[in-house]
Amino acid sequence: MAFVLGPNRYGKAETRLVHVTREGDTHGLRDLNVSVALSGDLSATHLTGDNSGVLPTDTMKNTVYAFAREHGVGEPEAFALRLGRHFVSTQPQVSSARVSIEAYGWERLGPHSFRRKGDFTRLCVVTVSEDFTQVVSGLKDFVLLNSTASEFHGFPRDRYTTLPEATDRILATAVDARWRHLSDTAAWGESFEKAKDALVNAFVNTYSYSLQQTLFSMGTRVLDSRPEIAEIRLALPNKHHYLVDLSPFDLENPGEVFIAGDRPYGLIEGTVTRDDVPPAPTEWYL
Amino acid sequence: MAFVLGPNRYGKAETRLVHVTREGDTHGLRDLNVSVALSGDLSATHLTGDNSGVLPTDTMKNTVYAFAREHGVGEPEAFALRLGRHFVSTQPQVSSARVSIEAYGWERLGPHSFRRKGDFTRLCVVTVSEDFTQVVSGLKDFVLLNSTASEFHGFPRDRYTTLPEATDRILATAVDARWRHLSDTAAWGESFEKAKDALVNAFVNTYSYSLQQTLFSMGTRVLDSRPEIAEIRLALPNKHHYLVDLSPFDLENPGEVFIAGDRPYGLIEGTVTRDDVPPAPTEWYL
Amino acid sequence: MAFVLGPNRYGKAETRLVHVTREGDTHGLRDLNVSVALSGDLSATHLTGDNSGVLPTDTMKNTVYAFAREHGVGEPEAFALRLGRHFVSTQPQVSSARVSIEAYGWERLGPHSFRRKGDFTRLCVVTVSEDFTQVVSGLKDFVLLNSTASEFHGFPRDRYTTLPEATDRILATAVDARWRHLSDTAAWGESFEKAKDALVNAFVNTYSYSLQQTLFSMGTRVLDSRPEIAEIRLALPNKHHYLVDLSPFDLENPGEVFIAGDRPYGLIEGTVTRDDVPPAPTEWYL
Amino acid sequence: MAFVLGPNRYGKAETRLVHVTREGDTHGLRDLNVSVALSGDLSATHLTGDNSGVLPTDTMKNTVYAFAREHGVGEPEAFALRLGRHFVSTQPQVSSARVSIEAYGWERLGPHSFRRKGDFTRLCVVTVSEDFTQVVSGLKDFVLLNSTASEFHGFPRDRYTTLPEATDRILATAVDARWRHLSDTAAWGESFEKAKDALVNAFVNTYSYSLQQTLFSMGTRVLDSRPEIAEIRLALPNKHHYLVDLSPFDLENPGEVFIAGDRPYGLIEGTVTRDDVPPAPTEWYL
Repeated sequence: MAFVLGPNRYGKAETRLVHVTREGDTHGLRDLNVSVALSGDLSATHLTGDNSGVLPTDTMKNTVYAFAREHGVGEPEAFALRLGRHFVSTQPQVSSARVSIEAYGWERLGPHSFRRKGDFTRLCVVTVSEDFTQVVSGLKDFVLLNSTASEFHGFPRDRYTTLPEATDRILATAVDARWRHLSDTAAWGESFEKAKDALVNAFVNTYSYSLQQTLFSMGTRVLDSRPEIAEIRLALPNKHHYLVDLSPFDLENPGEVFIAGDRPYGLIEGTVTRDDVPPAPTEWYL
Repeated sequence: MAFVLGPNRYGKAETRLVHVTREGDTHGLRDLNVSVALSGDLSATHLTGDNSGVLPTDTMKNTVYAFAREHGVGEPEAFALRLGRHFVSTQPQVSSARVSIEAYGWERLGPHSFRRKGDFTRLCVVTVSEDFTQVVSGLKDFVLLNSTASEFHGFPRDRYTTLPEATDRILATAVDARWRHLSDTAAWGESFEKAKDALVNAFVNTYSYSLQQTLFSMGTRVLDSRPEIAEIRLALPNKHHYLVDLSPFDLENPGEVFIAGDRPYGLIEGTVTRDDVPPAPTEWYL
Repeated sequence: MAFVLGPNRYGKAETRLVHVTREGDTHGLRDLNVSVALSGDLSATHLTGDNSGVLPTDTMKNTVYAFAREHGVGEPEAFALRLGRHFVSTQPQVSSARVSIEAYGWERLGPHSFRRKGDFTRLCVVTVSEDFTQVVSGLKDFVLLNSTASEFHGFPRDRYTTLPEATDRILATAVDARWRHLSDTAAWGESFEKAKDALVNAFVNTYSYSLQQTLFSMGTRVLDSRPEIAEIRLALPNKHHYLVDLSPFDLENPGEVFIAGDRPYGLIEGTVTRDDVPPAPTEWYL
Repeated sequence: MAFVLGPNRYGKAETRLVHVTREGDTHGLRDLNVSVALSGDLSATHLTGDNSGVLPTDTMKNTVYAFAREHGVGEPEAFALRLGRHFVSTQPQVSSARVSIEAYGWERLGPHSFRRKGDFTRLCVVTVSEDFTQVVSGLKDFVLLNSTASEFHGFPRDRYTTLPEATDRILATAVDARWRHLSDTAAWGESFEKAKDALVNAFVNTYSYSLQQTLFSMGTRVLDSRPEIAEIRLALPNKHHYLVDLSPFDLENPGEVFIAGDRPYGLIEGTVTRDDVPPAPTEWYL
C-alpha cells in the first residue's frame, strides 16, 4: 500500500484587472477578475518540494497585466484563450490550462465616465490542452421574477408533506447559467448577449408548472437560437416568496403581500444538450 | 455610585417585504427591507424584566405586512412615515420611532415580469416623535468611475510620504449619500431620482483635484437643484486603481492597465448644508 | 442662502497589518485591520481642490507599517494611541484623529505556528485631539446562546400582536459591545479579557425575562468588575430560534427542534453608565 | 437534431436546524445547515410540467426537522445517511440522494450555555443510491499560519517572472479538505477529530518548500493515520503575506511587518489517494 498523488492543479486566483482603452477623448472600460489554473506533471513539487516545474503564480498575475497591454483585452473569452494558449505553449511541463474570468458590466455616462451595473456577472471558463480547447460562457446572480403565471401542484405527498397545491405563485430565481461552445471561435460578445436574451425570453414567456419546466424551456431556447452552443447547464435557486397569512388581522391577501425568504431555498439544477454533439472531453462547467 | 441606563432602543430589523400591485394584467413591484426601532421609557424591562411596555418586535413585523395590505406601500418614505406615526400614536410608552428602509430596484420585462437591478440600494430613515418628524433619503453602493479628469498633488509630505504626485488618475467611488428633507411632505419618488441625477452630474462633470472637492461638488449640486433638501452627508470610499508597473516587461503603461484594489481604501466623509436652515433636532443620518 | 461645509473627515481605511515578533525561535503574532480618520480645517480641498493641508491617505498606511517596525505593536489600544498622537502632533492642520482597529485572534500551535480563532473580533476606537483623548474598547460577532432559562411574556398586545407568551425559549445573540475607558492608560490586554469574561458571566447566569434585561445585566457586570470603564454600549441582535411545529407529523416538540432564523431579527441597543462620570466629550462608540 | 435533458437534480438547500438534547439539566447542541438533492427520472416535470414524480422540496425540509425529533441528530454523517436512505427507499422515482451538511461548532459555557466557535465549518456529503453509498467528510475555512519554516525558490523564470526567490516567508492558508470514507460505518466524530489533527500536525511540522509539498504532506498524514479514509482532496489558497518595503523610511524589515493580502491569491488543489482502493463510483467531493 502506498499513497499517490491524484488530480491536481495550481494557479493564481482573482487577479483584478481594469483596462482602459482610449480612442481620442472617448474611453472604454473592461473590468475583469481573472483566475488561472495549470496542470501537468507536478509530482516533484508535491513529493520533494522541487519547484523546477512550478511557474510562480505571481508570474501568472504579471502575465495577465502584461497581456492586457501587449494584446488588449477585448471579449473575456478571447482574452482567456490567449492566456491559456500562452501557458500551454510556453511551459513544457504544463499540459492543460484553465482560465476563468468574471466580467463586471459598466454603463457609459460620458466620454470617460461610467457607472457600474450590478444586475449580473458575466463568466467564462476556457480550458486549453495540447489537443483540445473548450470554451464555456455564462452568467450568475441574474435575478428574474414573475409575479404570476406560475403554478405548482400534482406532486406526490408522503407523511411529511404539508405543502398546499398552488395555482398562482411568485416564481423568482437568480440564474446561474454556463454554456459550452461548439468551437473556439465565435462572435463572443454578440453570442453572450443573444444567449442572455434567450434566457430572459424563455423565463418571461413560459407559463410555469414547475421551475424544472422553466429551466428546460430556458435551456432549449438558448440552444434553439444559438447554433454555436452545444449544451447549457442551469442552476436555479427557487427564491421562495411566502404569501403572508393576514387572517389574524381580518385581512385577505390576494397575492399581494409576500415575505421574501432567504433560507432554505429550492435548488434546481439541470443540463440541456444537443443530441448530435459529442460529449465534452473534460468536465466543462466548473 | 450606581449604574444607570443610558440611551436605548429596540425593534425588529430587516423585515423583508415584497408587495405586488395588480392593475388588470399589469403588476407592480415593491421590494423592501424594513427595520423599526422604538424608544421611550424602557427602564422596567431592563431593570426587572417587566415587559408591560415592550410591544413585541414580532408585532412590528406583523404591522409591516398588514400595513402593506391595508394602506399599500408606495414610496419608501411614505411607508416609513405611516409606520412611524402608528407606533408613536398608538403606544403611549413609545416616545420616538425610527423606521429605516432599504429599497431594491427592479426593471420591468413584461406585464408581470421583472429583473432585479443591482446598481444601488435606495435608503430612507424616518424619525417620528410627538413633536417632530424627520425624513432622510439616500442611497448606497452606487459605483461611479471617471477614467481621467482627476489629479491629486500639492499635498504635504512628511517622513512617511512616498506617494508620487498624480496628474492623471482613475477616480472611482461607491457613493453612500443621505440627505435630510426640510419637511415631511415631498414628491418622494421624483425627489429621489433628481437628487441621484444631481450626484451623477456633479461626479461626471467635476474636473477633480481631490475626492473631497468632488464630494463638495456633489453635495452642493444636490442642494442647488433640490430646494426640499436641507443638508446632505456623503461617505465616499476612494476605490484605488493602481497603474501597473510594466517596465520589467519593457512595456510602457500610459494609463491603460490598472489593478483594482480592495483594501486599504481611502474614505472621505463630509456634509454640505444650507446656511439658513435650523440644525436637525436629532442625529439625522443613521 | 449659501451652501457650507459641515462636519467632515478623511483617512485610510482597512490597512491590513500582520506583525511577527521573534524571541529566539518562538514567534508572536498580531493581526490587525487599522483605519485612520483625520479632521481639521479641510475647507480648501473641498472648495478649491487645494491639497496643501491634506496628508495623503497613502502616508497614513505607510505610517501604520513603519510604526509597527519602529515601536512594535502591542495591544491595539496602545498602537492606536501612538498613531493618533502622531498625526495630531505632527500635522498642524489636523485637530483630531480617530484610529479604529479590528484585531483577529490566533491560537498558538507551536513555536511559529498558529490557527486563527473566529469566535469574535476585538475592537478599539481611539480619538485624540489637542485637549482630550478617548479610548473605547470592545468586540463584535461574539455569539452566545442559552438553550433555556429565558422567558418572554407580559408584553402589551395590540391589533397586530399574535406572538404567544413564552416561558421557555432559546436566547441567542451576537454580542456587539463597546466600552469607554475613564483614562488613556490601562492594562489593555487584561482589561479586555476581564470585560469579556464579565459579559459572558452575565449572559450565562442571568435568568432572562427579556433580552433587554440580559443587556442591562451584562453592562452592569462589566462596570461593576472593571473600575477603569466609564460606560458600555451593547447592540444585541435577538437571533430568533423558532420551535418547529411537528404536530402535522403526530410529533411533539418539547423544546428540541428549532429553526435558526436569519431575518428578520430583533435588535436591542442600550447603554449602561456610571452616574458619577462626566459625559464623553465626543460621540464615543463609532 | 433535438434537445435532450442531461444530468439534473433538485432539492432543498440550507435548511437550518438547531437541535437541543436535554439530559437532566445538561443540554447538548447540534447546529446544522442541511441540503438535500434528489435525482432520478425527472423528465416529465422538465418537459411537460407533470409533477407526479417531484416530491416537494418543502417536504425535504419537513423531513429534516421531523427526523431530528424522531431519530435524534448525532454526528452529521449519520444524520445525512438516515435522510439519504429515507428518500431513496420511500420514493420509487428517486434513484439517488445527496445530503450535504455544514456543522457549526459550539463550546460549552455551562449546563445550558454555549458560545459559537468560528474556527472552521465541519462538512459532510453523503450520496445514497440503490447500489452504493458514499460518505465524504471534511472541513473548510480552517486558517493555519506558519511564520517561518517556509521557502519558495528553484522555480522556472520566463519573460514575465519578477518574483524573487524566498528562503523565509509566511505560509498561511484556509484549509478546505474533503475526504472519502471506505465504508458507510465509522466512528464519525472521532474520525473527524483525528483527521483534523493529522492535517494540523502535518501543516505545523512540514518544513515547506512549496504549498504543494505541504498539501501532499497533509494528505498523506491523514491517510496514514486513518485507515477508514480512502482518499482526500485539499484546496489550499495561498494567503499571501507581503513583506513591507520599509527602506524609504530608513528601516530594515527582518521578517517582521507584513501586508495581509486579499486578492489575488494562489490556489493549490490536489488529491491524495491510496493505491489499493477502487475509484469512487461518483464524483465524490462536491
